[in-house]
Amino acid sequence: MSTQLLEARRVFEVAPFIRDLGCQLIALDDGFCESRIALETRHQQQDGFVHAGVQATLADHTAGTAAVTLISEGELVLTAEFKINLLRAAKGRYLLCRSQVLKPGRSLSVVESEVFVERDDGQQVLVSKATVTLAVLQST
Amino acid sequence: MSTQLLEARRVFEVAPFIRDLGCQLIALDDGFCESRIALETRHQQQDGFVHAGVQATLADHTAGTAAVTLISEGELVLTAEFKINLLRAAKGRYLLCRSQVLKPGRSLSVVESEVFVERDDGQQVLVSKATVTLAVLQST
Amino acid sequence: MSTQLLEARRVFEVAPFIRDLGCQLIALDDGFCESRIALETRHQQQDGFVHAGVQATLADHTAGTAAVTLISEGELVLTAEFKINLLRAAKGRYLLCRSQVLKPGRSLSVVESEVFVERDDGQQVLVSKATVTLAVLQST
Amino acid sequence: MSTQLLEARRVFEVAPFIRDLGCQLIALDDGFCESRIALETRHQQQDGFVHAGVQATLADHTAGTAAVTLISEGELVLTAEFKINLLRAAKGRYLLCRSQVLKPGRSLSVVESEVFVERDDGQQVLVSKATVTLAVLQST
Repeated sequence: MSTQLLEARRVFEVAPFIRDLGCQLIALDDGFCESRIALETRHQQQDGFVHAGVQATLADHTAGTAAVTLISEGELVLTAEFKINLLRAAKGRYLLCRSQVLKPGRSLSVVESEVFVERDDGQQVLVSKATVTLAVLQST
Repeated sequence: MSTQLLEARRVFEVAPFIRDLGCQLIALDDGFCESRIALETRHQQQDGFVHAGVQATLADHTAGTAAVTLISEGELVLTAEFKINLLRAAKGRYLLCRSQVLKPGRSLSVVESEVFVERDDGQQVLVSKATVTLAVLQST
Repeated sequence: MSTQLLEARRVFEVAPFIRDLGCQLIALDDGFCESRIALETRHQQQDGFVHAGVQATLADHTAGTAAVTLISEGELVLTAEFKINLLRAAKGRYLLCRSQVLKPGRSLSVVESEVFVERDDGQQVLVSKATVTLAVLQST
Repeated sequence: MSTQLLEARRVFEVAPFIRDLGCQLIALDDGFCESRIALETRHQQQDGFVHAGVQATLADHTAGTAAVTLISEGELVLTAEFKINLLRAAKGRYLLCRSQVLKPGRSLSVVESEVFVERDDGQQVLVSKATVTLAVLQST
């Protein structure tokens, strides 16, 4: 594993909120990250579906990790903004997210995240899609 | 309290993910909702700031609750999409959110959420701002 | 051509602002639309690049046309909101847009638009990407 | 008028697409810009309302001009992304836009734009609202 992939793995795993939610890193490559949450009742909104905030958190954090794979040593990323469309009410065993860098940059990276639920029969259904803009900063 | 304000309070409080995060309802009025989280280490991202996902969750859920105050009995709201700009690295004792309906509608409501941190000296600083579009549906 | 593809073609071509900009319909299929502008000086912003407003207009209108291909007779679409990321300064002979419906729906359609410039050597480069949410309404 | 306000005025007025659309600068101050279009048939979409692309163009360009008032000499701004919510079908004599910088920054500025139609009776109605993120760059 390259230095930058190791750094991306560290960033994914060290964030306390991500541990608290139960997010797991599944796959990592240059410009790409995949993650997963085993869904529990605590992840739901008032009607029994996965809360938009859980989907947004996974979409944002997985996007950030994908961006880290393409920056240089001594740099870090911070989310500047994101937009997420919730396409279907989300219910299933797992929530999965696949994030792909659309445009890496010296000062801004743009990443797309697709969020799926995996149902009991193993079928994966797209439930939300996000576009995430990250600022690339010098760590000091 | 009107029937619809009571329903909004129920929607805010019954969502398991909102309880799990420690979000509290602070104020509620027609087209308006205010909420708060007492910040803990578990709400942080990798650099010690409040995770964007925590801010997004509070912005989305408080917006949805504000929208519920203006719908009719037998209707419910679901987030269709939202966009959030993270304006400053967020650190403090509390995370607060104030949501105001910008445009109520029969099929779509648009709500704005402003998220603040309250620092140790009591000062409140705007850390993010979101625009949330909610679909208004017939509950069946 | 099906009734709905004919209606989509009509919607694309009849809009006065689209004619004024010089947008042409290139291809149309169920859930898909492609369009083009032959770029002139009048489409530029202050630094000689294609104005973000031109890119946004093409992304929105092509998305709306793609959505029309999947609605029923007696329905129409109106843009509820869109978000566009400008990825690179845009310069070339043509501006092209390809829009694909991500999620058709009875009350909301979500469409993605990719905008390219075609350079003098014929190469196409992605310059912006938009996500467009459209309300599906009964025409009266 | 300060150097930076003069530069903002120049940026607003020199853009060919803005001239072509008939946009006029109405007011300018530190962090603020107001603009207007006298509406004509050519600004319409297929149902006789102001095209979302016209609203987006005015929202983006007025936001960019507001951002320019707060940058330093030798810097320029480029739109990184924006999101616009179309709140009501827009019809009237004038389209107006007021843009206010929400968060100036050394590398990113976030600006909000409110777009109004002015009806024949002089009443102004909010028709759309945008959030615009601009990259602040060194001009070379």
